[in-house]
This record gives sequence, structure tokens and C-alpha cells, in this order.
Amino acid sequence: MNKLKVHSRKLKAVTRVLAIDPGYERVGIAVVEKSKAGEESLVYSECFETDAKEVFETRLLRIGGEIERVIATYAPLALAIEQLYFNSNQKTAMRVAEARGAIIYVCTKHNLRLFEYTPLQIKSAVSGYGKSTKAQVARMLPRLIDMPKQKRRDDEYDAIAIGLTCLASERFR
Amino acid sequence: MNKLKVHSRKLKAVTRVLAIDPGYERVGIAVVEKSKAGEESLVYSECFETDAKEVFETRLLRIGGEIERVIATYAPLALAIEQLYFNSNQKTAMRVAEARGAIIYVCTKHNLRLFEYTPLQIKSAVSGYGKSTKAQVARMLPRLIDMPKQKRRDDEYDAIAIGLTCLASERFR
Repeated sequence: MNKLKVHSRKLKAVTRVLAIDPGYERVGIAVVEKSKAGEESLVYSECFETDAKEVFETRLLRIGGEIERVIATYAPLALAIEQLYFNSNQKTAMRVAEARGAIIYVCTKHNLRLFEYTPLQIKSAVSGYGKSTKAQVARMLPRLIDMPKQKRRDDEYDAIAIGLTCLASERFR
Repeated sequence: MNKLKVHSRKLKAVTRVLAIDPGYERVGIAVVEKSKAGEESLVYSECFETDAKEVFETRLLRIGGEIERVIATYAPLALAIEQLYFNSNQKTAMRVAEARGAIIYVCTKHNLRLFEYTPLQIKSAVSGYGKSTKAQVARMLPRLIDMPKQKRRDDEYDAIAIGLTCLASERFR
């Protein structure tokens, strides 16, 4: 967990984005923002884990609850989420897609605008190269965004990278 | 739309199941019930369609809203839903999986217990043969459940078949 600062939504100078690396076992969650001056900073990030002993639908419910908590606390205006591609394990891919659907549903219900990015777009935006490794992306992040040094899970780094991609790619009003 | 009768949830003699053939363009929705005497009947069914002109996340929201409406009206105790398999169109399969995740999320949030069935289980339960065609399954349904004769979409028949599979397979308390 990494809580830096909390701004009120009334600060219109700030564009705040909830960024999610979707999954049902681990969900990377980050809140990033851009000030009117164009400075990007990390507001919050975590790797949210669900209990493997619980049934799938309960794990979905926990993820939805955590996302509602983050939305209520940080009041982001948009959801940035990674687009999925099928890998060799179809059953896992299906469950991740289902988790992704539940996440998009919860965020849309809370009026967040949706932005989706492919892994290629994310890697290119962060490292300038579409085939960067996870380690290369993670190493680039502190150069691009004001974030405290601490150990993070891959999913958390991925979420931050997705958030940065959104801040770099979209024009918010 | 097909509304037969509405029982109160207080009637403990009745087991009522919400059955869903998942999708994001069309969702087959049925509510089926079993009386204490073992008689199965169709309470409600429809093929809910979303507008192709709307973005995906809005369509998810409409589906969630419709399912909440059906849950509030008919108070089912469980959700029976078809398990997905990947077909040749990965993009469609992904979107259907996401819709399925949103549907499971909404139903779990409303305390419905989840039951999942493969197409093989559904066809076997309804027609006694795992490789039946859609038309064969649709023809069997009126012999198995009290339902008025009327024209229905495939998705609606599929939802009814999923509901029947659940009533036939599970012991509720």
C-alpha cells in the first residue's frame, strides 16, 4: 500500500485516473494524476490479492468492493485498463476476462470514463519500445512520475504504467 | 417478454432460479421454478438486447440494470449460467466473457448462489443427448416445463434450458 496524498475532486486543476491491471488472483491498482502544470504523480497504488480458498464469484465481489473503496477515497474521473490477449491457458484467460468485465461494470456504474490500452501501447508509452520487458518498464517509471521508492509487485508497476499511458495519451477537457 | 406469474419469496415451497445465456449483444434471461410437488414452470423469459450504437461499457451497464430489475421483480435464489468456450472469434469471446463476469458480479452482490453448466451438460439434461442441435433442445422444452406457446429467440430458449438443467441437477436445501 502506498498512500501519498489525497486531493479533493473540487480541485479542477487535477486530472485523476484509476489504472488497473486486471486479474482475479491479483489486481494491480493505481491512482495517478496530472496537475494543471502538467506534472504527473502517483496518488495511490497497491496489489490487491484475493483468497484462493474462496470461490470465483466471491473473489469477484471482493475485487468490486476494493475498487469501490478506491473510487470513493480518491474520486478518479476515468478508468484506464489493459486490454487482454488470449494466452495458452484458456481457462485462466476466461476468468481474467470475467474479472475485467466486472471491473469495467463497477467503474462505469460510478461514472468513470473507460480507456483501454494494449500491452504494446503501454510499453511504447512508458519506455518508447513496444517489446520492453517488465523489468525495463518498472525501471522507467520513477523517471516519469513522482513516486516514492519502495518494493512493489509486478501488477502494481503494471497498473502505474497503464495510468501513465492514459495521462500521456488522452486530453481531458 | 413472457410473464406468467409472480410468487412471493415467502413461499418457501418454491425454488426459483435465474438462468442466463450470457452475451453483450443479446442476453437470454429466464426465471424458472420448482414447486414443492416437483412441478417445474417458467416464470419469466426474455431476450434482452443492447444497442450496437452504444459503447461496450454502456451495454454492460444496461445488462446489469436489466438483471437487477429481474432480480428485484422475481427474487430468484440462484443464478444458473452457461460456461463459455472460446470459439474462432477471440474478440467476441473476450467481450462475452467480460459480460459474463459483470453478470456474475451483479448476481453475487444480490446474494444469488452461482451454478455453472457446460453446453454438454445443458444439452444432456434437456434432451438426453450432448450433441443435440439448438432446434432439438427448443423442441424438448415444452415437454419438460409448463410454458406458453409463443415465438422465442434462440437465446431465450437457451436460458430456459440452462434453468431447467439447474432445477434438475441441484438439491436446494
